[in-house]
Amino acid sequence: MDHLPVLGLDADDTLWENEAHFRQTEDRFLDLVAPWADHETAAAALLAAEKANLSVTGYGIKGFVLSMVETAISLSDGACDADRIGTILDWGRWMLQAPVDPLPGVAETLEVLAADHRLLVITKGDPGEQLRKVAASGLDGHFWQVEVVAHKTAEAYRDVLDGHGITPADFVMVGNSVPSDVLPVLALGGRAVHVPHHTTWALETVHADDVDGHDFPVLDSLAELPALLTDWRG
Amino acid sequence: MDHLPVLGLDADDTLWENEAHFRQTEDRFLDLVAPWADHETAAAALLAAEKANLSVTGYGIKGFVLSMVETAISLSDGACDADRIGTILDWGRWMLQAPVDPLPGVAETLEVLAADHRLLVITKGDPGEQLRKVAASGLDGHFWQVEVVAHKTAEAYRDVLDGHGITPADFVMVGNSVPSDVLPVLALGGRAVHVPHHTTWALETVHADDVDGHDFPVLDSLAELPALLTDWRG
Repeated sequence: MDHLPVLGLDADDTLWENEAHFRQTEDRFLDLVAPWADHETAAAALLAAEKANLSVTGYGIKGFVLSMVETAISLSDGACDADRIGTILDWGRWMLQAPVDPLPGVAETLEVLAADHRLLVITKGDPGEQLRKVAASGLDGHFWQVEVVAHKTAEAYRDVLDGHGITPADFVMVGNSVPSDVLPVLALGGRAVHVPHHTTWALETVHADDVDGHDFPVLDSLAELPALLTDWRG
Repeated sequence: MDHLPVLGLDADDTLWENEAHFRQTEDRFLDLVAPWADHETAAAALLAAEKANLSVTGYGIKGFVLSMVETAISLSDGACDADRIGTILDWGRWMLQAPVDPLPGVAETLEVLAADHRLLVITKGDPGEQLRKVAASGLDGHFWQVEVVAHKTAEAYRDVLDGHGITPADFVMVGNSVPSDVLPVLALGGRAVHVPHHTTWALETVHADDVDGHDFPVLDSLAELPALLTDWRG
């Protein structure tokens, strides 16, 4: 088993739906502030608030809720009533406790993969929120280790791999985000597999320039990963 | 150096002021909701909200802000205006970026301790918030490792010590909270030193029953720790 690579797995939108919940909540938010701003204006204002708050609040639901409240107040020029703000808090409370359903085929695929690979979840975000989702997914029995990092930079991956005594040559990262899951691992000399998801946050989309010159497999779903790994073993 | 114990250090209110910032903000909050509730009622409502939200939001400033907004809305029965809520968000933004000043004597003491001990910070809370404070304190050069845990249970300490290959017999934990920093470490068979702080959160106070039968040194300040460690070495 030691000659097989450790499999790094992104979590949100690779193992379970996540971004879609944020976008559904955002849609409700756009309706909530409709008395003061059209959808396009409100969406741009919310994204700007999220971006500005990221370095202060970090990733996660609580920061998203604070950005929505802030944006509701600013778009309404202070006219937004407390009931609406209470509604935003309720959405946040729901998101923080929402069920976590694995994407189709994920549970079965992880069972296959875990039989002969060590599965190392590497996820970015609020550690409390991320670890809750790992537990709530019912998938945690398959995982060798779970690491929550603040940013998915090449340095962060190197720290995680060093911490577990893994060399990049023995590591394959799998995830839905090219800038977070693929490029930094390729930069370290590891391998990476892109499994695109239907919904990607605007701050996670990649510029074509960043991908130029990089070559990595792109799979339609995680279920195709075992066959790819078998191919690689020759 | 290997025969000297690893020193575990709590961070908030052991190395720098923390709880006082929450209490200062709470005082301002009590004034802000004064049109609808007297201070005692409002303080009780906020504490109840914090307690109820703890399992959903975790520890930290963002959860505290959400609890304040929720409490302002409920105490005012929805009459709280957006300007007041915006003010609460501003306090949160300030707290999330506030300077972190080491308590008197801490920097000098850590310099002495770090010369012949490995210093392992073990702090509870929101990892993003805690790691920011470590960096902003200017003390991080003294630390061997920094661990942020969700709860300071005996099990959490055992996991941290195991992860670093430390046996409890070679570990001394130092902090201001008896339930978080002292009792769980004693339960593992490690040593612990209590350095009380002037401000302790209501949810961190200890019941006399829990301390009964336990014996541990209580210091007036961290500056007394080097002498105690010298005593222990005999």
